[in-house]
Amino acid sequence: MPSNTNRVGHDQPETTIVSILVPPATIESPELHDVRLPPEKTTFQKLRHKLSELFFHDDPLHGFKNQTLVKKIVFALHFMFPIFQWAPNYDLTLFRSDVVSGLTIASLAIPQGISYAKLANLPPVIGLYSSFVPPLIYAVLGSSKHLAVGPVSIASLVMGTMLNDAVSYSLQPVLYLNLAFTATFFAGLFQASLGLLRLGFVIDFLSKATLVGFMAGAAVIVSLQQLKGLLGIVNFTSKMQIIPVLSSVIEQRDQWSWHTIVMGISFLAILLTTRQIGMRRPKLFLVSAIAPLLSVILSTFLVAIFITKLPNVATIGQLDKGLNPPSSNRLYFHGKFLVVAIKTGVVTGLLSLMEGIAVGRTFAALKNYQVDGNKEMIAIGLMNMAGSCSSCYVTSGSFSRSAVNENAGGKTAMSNVIMALTVLVTLLFLMPLFRCTPNLILAVIIITAVIGLIDYQSAFRLWKVDKLDFLACLSSFFGVLFVSVPVGLAVAVGVSVFKILLHVTRPHTRVLGKIPGTEIFQDLVRYREAQRVPSFVILGIEAPIYFANSTYLQERILRWLREEKDWIAANNGSILKYVIIDMTAVTAIDTSGLAMMNELRKMLENQSLQLVLANPTGSVMEKLHQSNSLESFGSKALYLTVGEAVVGIKLII
Amino acid sequence: MPSNTNRVGHDQPETTIVSILVPPATIESPELHDVRLPPEKTTFQKLRHKLSELFFHDDPLHGFKNQTLVKKIVFALHFMFPIFQWAPNYDLTLFRSDVVSGLTIASLAIPQGISYAKLANLPPVIGLYSSFVPPLIYAVLGSSKHLAVGPVSIASLVMGTMLNDAVSYSLQPVLYLNLAFTATFFAGLFQASLGLLRLGFVIDFLSKATLVGFMAGAAVIVSLQQLKGLLGIVNFTSKMQIIPVLSSVIEQRDQWSWHTIVMGISFLAILLTTRQIGMRRPKLFLVSAIAPLLSVILSTFLVAIFITKLPNVATIGQLDKGLNPPSSNRLYFHGKFLVVAIKTGVVTGLLSLMEGIAVGRTFAALKNYQVDGNKEMIAIGLMNMAGSCSSCYVTSGSFSRSAVNENAGGKTAMSNVIMALTVLVTLLFLMPLFRCTPNLILAVIIITAVIGLIDYQSAFRLWKVDKLDFLACLSSFFGVLFVSVPVGLAVAVGVSVFKILLHVTRPHTRVLGKIPGTEIFQDLVRYREAQRVPSFVILGIEAPIYFANSTYLQERILRWLREEKDWIAANNGSILKYVIIDMTAVTAIDTSGLAMMNELRKMLENQSLQLVLANPTGSVMEKLHQSNSLESFGSKALYLTVGEAVVGIKLII
Repeated sequence: MPSNTNRVGHDQPETTIVSILVPPATIESPELHDVRLPPEKTTFQKLRHKLSELFFHDDPLHGFKNQTLVKKIVFALHFMFPIFQWAPNYDLTLFRSDVVSGLTIASLAIPQGISYAKLANLPPVIGLYSSFVPPLIYAVLGSSKHLAVGPVSIASLVMGTMLNDAVSYSLQPVLYLNLAFTATFFAGLFQASLGLLRLGFVIDFLSKATLVGFMAGAAVIVSLQQLKGLLGIVNFTSKMQIIPVLSSVIEQRDQWSWHTIVMGISFLAILLTTRQIGMRRPKLFLVSAIAPLLSVILSTFLVAIFITKLPNVATIGQLDKGLNPPSSNRLYFHGKFLVVAIKTGVVTGLLSLMEGIAVGRTFAALKNYQVDGNKEMIAIGLMNMAGSCSSCYVTSGSFSRSAVNENAGGKTAMSNVIMALTVLVTLLFLMPLFRCTPNLILAVIIITAVIGLIDYQSAFRLWKVDKLDFLACLSSFFGVLFVSVPVGLAVAVGVSVFKILLHVTRPHTRVLGKIPGTEIFQDLVRYREAQRVPSFVILGIEAPIYFANSTYLQERILRWLREEKDWIAANNGSILKYVIIDMTAVTAIDTSGLAMMNELRKMLENQSLQLVLANPTGSVMEKLHQSNSLESFGSKALYLTVGEAVVGIKLII
Repeated sequence: MPSNTNRVGHDQPETTIVSILVPPATIESPELHDVRLPPEKTTFQKLRHKLSELFFHDDPLHGFKNQTLVKKIVFALHFMFPIFQWAPNYDLTLFRSDVVSGLTIASLAIPQGISYAKLANLPPVIGLYSSFVPPLIYAVLGSSKHLAVGPVSIASLVMGTMLNDAVSYSLQPVLYLNLAFTATFFAGLFQASLGLLRLGFVIDFLSKATLVGFMAGAAVIVSLQQLKGLLGIVNFTSKMQIIPVLSSVIEQRDQWSWHTIVMGISFLAILLTTRQIGMRRPKLFLVSAIAPLLSVILSTFLVAIFITKLPNVATIGQLDKGLNPPSSNRLYFHGKFLVVAIKTGVVTGLLSLMEGIAVGRTFAALKNYQVDGNKEMIAIGLMNMAGSCSSCYVTSGSFSRSAVNENAGGKTAMSNVIMALTVLVTLLFLMPLFRCTPNLILAVIIITAVIGLIDYQSAFRLWKVDKLDFLACLSSFFGVLFVSVPVGLAVAVGVSVFKILLHVTRPHTRVLGKIPGTEIFQDLVRYREAQRVPSFVILGIEAPIYFANSTYLQERILRWLREEKDWIAANNGSILKYVIIDMTAVTAIDTSGLAMMNELRKMLENQSLQLVLANPTGSVMEKLHQSNSLESFGSKALYLTVGEAVVGIKLII
């Protein structure tokens, strides 16, 4: 079939359609299609394409295209300040919804703010400060309609641990507080930089599986730490691993205060029950949303009334009235604690970012709108940088409060403004009321909030669906529990990356057969009706061919051949002549892979077998062309589909 | 088309063929094929399969299958001691070839052995010891027919650097030597363990691209270090980075000895010329093979004759006659230098292993026989462990000497035995002859040997074919040159792994169209004749769907849809109704990927679009089934090929 010999004209680099099949006029044969190179691009064009896929894959500026200057300016304002998108159409109906939801999340945010600040070893009022400034800034910059902004549990916990490793909050409270603000500043800077540099994809490397384990581990640690407040222990360990915490609980059992324990367990029972009610009956979510605030009020009254009879019940104590004081003068940019602050900032920044982005995406998907991850990062980062200058610590979008926000009918970021205003009123007028609020109620609120992070159902699903994902989950769980939060995270990322590498290192290979009556070639094991084609072995490789797997693939292919020959010998099949590799799933090849293919071709030739490639992808074709391998493969070794390869080769012989 | 609604019966887990298509009797329609789950396996079976693919992919024991006990024993002997494979058929013809090649490589091994020992800061005689014991052991255990065993340049260099960082070889020569033997022991232990545990694939992670850079960097460093011998400098830096080496050369210019320089440059010119001749005319390879030995003899004579006139030319000096003394009592297994010895052992073990395995594989492929990487590792490891007990340092298969071996007609490992015997004669009788051998000739031999490691042609090919591979190559080159060997290696592995991750993080997606007159669907950009199918968008994803890319893929797919809609609006196309994803190249999916697919399905439903999957691979089907996603996708959303999906959907509407 002479017309077929020049189907791939690699000697004509100036044209991308390498050559055209001229079907022979005399012989009636099925039409075969040539394998094309992708359109030619310069190195610069390729680099630009790669970079734009890496950083601008969602084409964030597509709205700018083909617009007048005025529209471009309007669009730029919309782009930078999403408030301009919704504010012009804002009306009373929306406002009514937002007021209801804003007040609801405020009732949750005030007790949680105080509690989470305690978790970070910070004065309770910092939690309220942090529920005031950042939500206002997010309302202007953020693109999520449902995110409820404020302190979050994981980031609070991590900040508390990491800073306390360097500075004792009880011995050096001022330094500790300054470091917390500094860490917050760097967290914001890191978050905003990730967004500006469009490196948002780094947070994708913390897979859901590892997060399930990480969250559960952190929740266990946090809950156990709350035994301090719940049991009324005064001298508690500041360590975060499970063993020191538990042994501290046991060792300090002479400090256990029975008043505290009875009160704590009662309120815990109440809050867990209302939480269950809220989860079971979504219509009654308001019960669980308001229960924490009611518990705070009730417990405060109880303590205030019976204060003489409850001497061992520790309370929050005097809190000063007033708005956030400025704190930009308290930021450290030098000195020996700078490294600690930066490290803490990066880790808490990353964690709070992940929570915020995940929450934003979840509700966006639920309500069918889009959130631009990188833009959200800039918004969250700027709000933290501003927060660090106004006595706030790291904030983000809280999952639980955002869910309440959505449930309560929140429609825009205005609900954050309403919440902030409620916090403002609290800060200005209601602070003295917290004087008798017992610490135990804060512990109870924290436990109720974090217990939802132990997602054993997801863990079970991971076990069922993907054992390696489950392993990643377990690693991060135990890493957090027994070593530390950063180690737990590092282990989790390591396991996830290892999983990817394992998949590339040991890819699947399949022997394919033809499904009778079709041109479909499928796995012989999976499709029992598929049949071997005499004289052919058809192999499917399911991975890019890289340095990490080229040796494996070569040996595996040779083993397939050996096994095929054994099969043929046992079944009196016809002698093997052609090895077709279905390259559809070989999405890339590197120089090691190219060397392997050439070597394999020679080895097969020594065994009087010809290697034929079917449907090489664009990038593989390009590499074959650039490395001059196309020439050594020859024109009879390249077909567009496995079916055409079989037909084409049969025509030749 | 009611017959089509139950093509995938995920509610029948006991059968792997999920359901059978019953073509409707009344309507004449093309036959559609059901998508199958892979045969069901228990978790244990899956684990066993995965482990066997990971560790025994080449089925090393396939010869044992279906054999009698006697044959099994014979096979086991053959398996463990490859010498039993070739020794029974050994004859005089083979022996004659092996004697010639053995003598030839001995003539190269003796000067190189002395030179490489100098490179590792060891007494020259250690290089000869190391060319005696290890080759004998390899001849029994090794499966390569062409590997010429002995000291190699890179491992010598690395050992010299790493040990010298801990102990000065001039101040504490005994300790230094003991550490060298200990490091050799651990190198062998590490190599043999890798082989025994079948972890040989770890060496694949040093890709060819990074090795090109690494070797070139090391060669430059080694060559520059030889300026010490070539210029006759006495007090030379012991550092390995390019800057201290060059500044040491300049600073010590008052020590430059002009006799040495003239002699050195003359011999360098001779050796480089003969090397060129050997490379240009393979028939004259003997010239380049024997030139080093002749140079040693000639230079020794020159120095011996003119010794009074050449006072500044440093010589090797007195070498003791005699065989390898035992050194097992000199191994350290405790103390503060143990860590250094282990670290040096692991790094040099890994590097020498890589060279040995690569050389073995290259010549096996050339001569069409198989080398089992893991078995080779055990052989090389055992030979180094034995070597460490008989005053040898790290050895491996040398590329240059193996090439000479093959060129000189070496047929079996017997050529290593002949070489070892020649070294034996040298050790016993010829040692005094080296007394007047000038150090400069060793420097010249080293430079000539390592200059071949600078493979600029490969580097240029990398640049042409794969820019990222070239980047990996450059990183390891500069890492070695400016920082250190381990850092260079680490950077190289890091860049290579980053490349894999980048490919997974940002996979290609394509819009496919139908090539007229066929059932082939191909990239619209690459195949201009391919046509869009009205009402459909057909997308091909070219990667497994993982946590690392699920967000990207979702956003990218939504962008494709947006662009498709723009195209339709501009071209008055028919309204979009179906999104078909060609899953052929989606070789795996994890839980994040599954969550993304479900979310995408819901988002598309909100836009009145239906998501259809074509040709999901076995493992993806399995995951979809286990996570109960098949049910939510529905039976009309799964087809065996894109073509059948289009036909099937058109039948429904």
